[in-house]
Amino acid sequence: MEGLLAIKWDDNRDKLILLDQTKLPNAIEYIEYDSIEGVWTAIKDMIVRGAPAIGVAAGYGLYFGIKDVPEESFWIIINEKADYLNSSRPTAVNLSWALNRMKKKAEESREKPISEIKKILREEAKRIHKEDIEICRSIGENFMPLIKNNMGILTHCNAGQLATSMYGTATSPIYLAYEKGWHIKVYSDETRPRLQGSTLTALELYQAGIDVTTITDNMAAVVMAQGKVDAVIVGCDRVAANGDTANKIGTFNVSILAKYFRIPMYIAAPTPTIDLSTPTGDEIPIEERGSKEITCRFGVWTAPKGVKTYNPSFDVTPHENITAIVTEKGIVYPPFKENLKKLFKK
Amino acid sequence: MEGLLAIKWDDNRDKLILLDQTKLPNAIEYIEYDSIEGVWTAIKDMIVRGAPAIGVAAGYGLYFGIKDVPEESFWIIINEKADYLNSSRPTAVNLSWALNRMKKKAEESREKPISEIKKILREEAKRIHKEDIEICRSIGENFMPLIKNNMGILTHCNAGQLATSMYGTATSPIYLAYEKGWHIKVYSDETRPRLQGSTLTALELYQAGIDVTTITDNMAAVVMAQGKVDAVIVGCDRVAANGDTANKIGTFNVSILAKYFRIPMYIAAPTPTIDLSTPTGDEIPIEERGSKEITCRFGVWTAPKGVKTYNPSFDVTPHENITAIVTEKGIVYPPFKENLKKLFKK
Repeated sequence: MEGLLAIKWDDNRDKLILLDQTKLPNAIEYIEYDSIEGVWTAIKDMIVRGAPAIGVAAGYGLYFGIKDVPEESFWIIINEKADYLNSSRPTAVNLSWALNRMKKKAEESREKPISEIKKILREEAKRIHKEDIEICRSIGENFMPLIKNNMGILTHCNAGQLATSMYGTATSPIYLAYEKGWHIKVYSDETRPRLQGSTLTALELYQAGIDVTTITDNMAAVVMAQGKVDAVIVGCDRVAANGDTANKIGTFNVSILAKYFRIPMYIAAPTPTIDLSTPTGDEIPIEERGSKEITCRFGVWTAPKGVKTYNPSFDVTPHENITAIVTEKGIVYPPFKENLKKLFKK
Repeated sequence: MEGLLAIKWDDNRDKLILLDQTKLPNAIEYIEYDSIEGVWTAIKDMIVRGAPAIGVAAGYGLYFGIKDVPEESFWIIINEKADYLNSSRPTAVNLSWALNRMKKKAEESREKPISEIKKILREEAKRIHKEDIEICRSIGENFMPLIKNNMGILTHCNAGQLATSMYGTATSPIYLAYEKGWHIKVYSDETRPRLQGSTLTALELYQAGIDVTTITDNMAAVVMAQGKVDAVIVGCDRVAANGDTANKIGTFNVSILAKYFRIPMYIAAPTPTIDLSTPTGDEIPIEERGSKEITCRFGVWTAPKGVKTYNPSFDVTPHENITAIVTEKGIVYPPFKENLKKLFKK
């Protein structure tokens, strides 16, 4: 499959091509990059977003930053450039992870000529890109025993292809089922306040030809009561050691509804998102964002100016509301505390 | 108290004056009506909305429809006009209730001259209006044993003063508590897709000086988990004989969350909203509205053009999720089937 890709690499022309996600769903425009400054701006301005996709863009960005530097200043400049790129969105874990991986790769090749190291870093950026695709595909494959033809799936926010290099995490089983010729009916919560569900998830599934229906977040109970949802599949921002899962605001809501209707609730989680050093959800810091996301999201005031708001960007779904966590290494069932540990011992 | 009124009657000029609620919270504009067609459009286009307010507007609307008809066709036309006005919105039972009340009043005066009956109907429309204010205040008074100083209350959509003639239904205890000098902290779900919670409820409470916080619908679970909500109070569009309650889309969601967190869920229901001839929620027709409310609410596309949507305007909260139904005649506790019947025998 291909569909709407967030990131493309032009191997002949040495160019990174990013989908401008700030324009979605109104325009599909790609922008070419061949400088680290360009990639810095693209990450900063959310032209590219989604933790895995940011990591991939950062790999290529650092390569642009060092590809033309003179041999004698290479080792100073690679660190400066990595620090610079890391400043674009300092909270995104995959960003520093990708930059550290690139630097480590250079370090490992220290005895080689600089011209050779530059080529190695180019290949490493491509490898990060390729591995991201493989991880997403593996998550989808590991989901397949849980998926059936003609199933209804509800998803929240965007853990889709647009947040990764291909397939997405929560959307990966949907794309793989589509490849098999199965019909999956997807309900996409629009996901207020930033509407990633309608602007991104509905868009990418619609463009791929998948049967997607956009609903507002508060319609999930009705759709579930009508028997239209056989499973909930969502992504995650961090999974704690006991299985508590931080994800986009509203996921906790959905998990309570799923429990009420006895619908399985699945988390799609690449293993780097599982953080065994965080014991429970209580220790996951929750970012609060500005008021205008709620009061003036559409460029029109939808609440009286000056009214108080509360805008937590994430919530924590307690592990007891989660049926299974599906990773690229396999499915983890409760008890999560024991079984997540076992996953990392594999 | 007065505050922001949805409906005014100009008794000297025979004009109905409606606040244009489609412009809120950005502009406070009143529109004058003196024809049934105007009122039909005002109800259809939600210039006036909220079941009680629709009932009041319908009373005046039917009066406009018959006030100039010739004597000989009066009895045919009053039925035609009532049917016509009744077609403006299918779910709100107050609409047909008010129209039937007007027709019955005419019927009771059958022996009188038509010119006299027209005057009687004019007074009847005014009486519906006045009674609505009294009913709302009584609902608030009956709520008081369930309310305490410093309580946190979550509400959904707008069952406020803007949905009625004064006080509102769900907001009535909040206004009465405020009159007593109590501090009530209100969380107002914004209520997608039409955002009545942020554009109307937050507006009217904020204007009245009440401590209101606007949240998106999917944040309710987080706020409840933090112990900030002591009670959920919502209005209703129709209560069936078994206590199943139709209300704005998302109320069913909230009821499931309230149950999960063991928070009482109260329905504020004027008795005209209670329909003993509808056995259960399954028999309540649910209006579906257009796609653009979800995909293009404010002139900006927030979903891909052409994507499927599902847009039920109401949902049904099953009676087992409801702690009590508070009416102008008193509080009704489960078992609702028995106790709602008893209420009407009082």
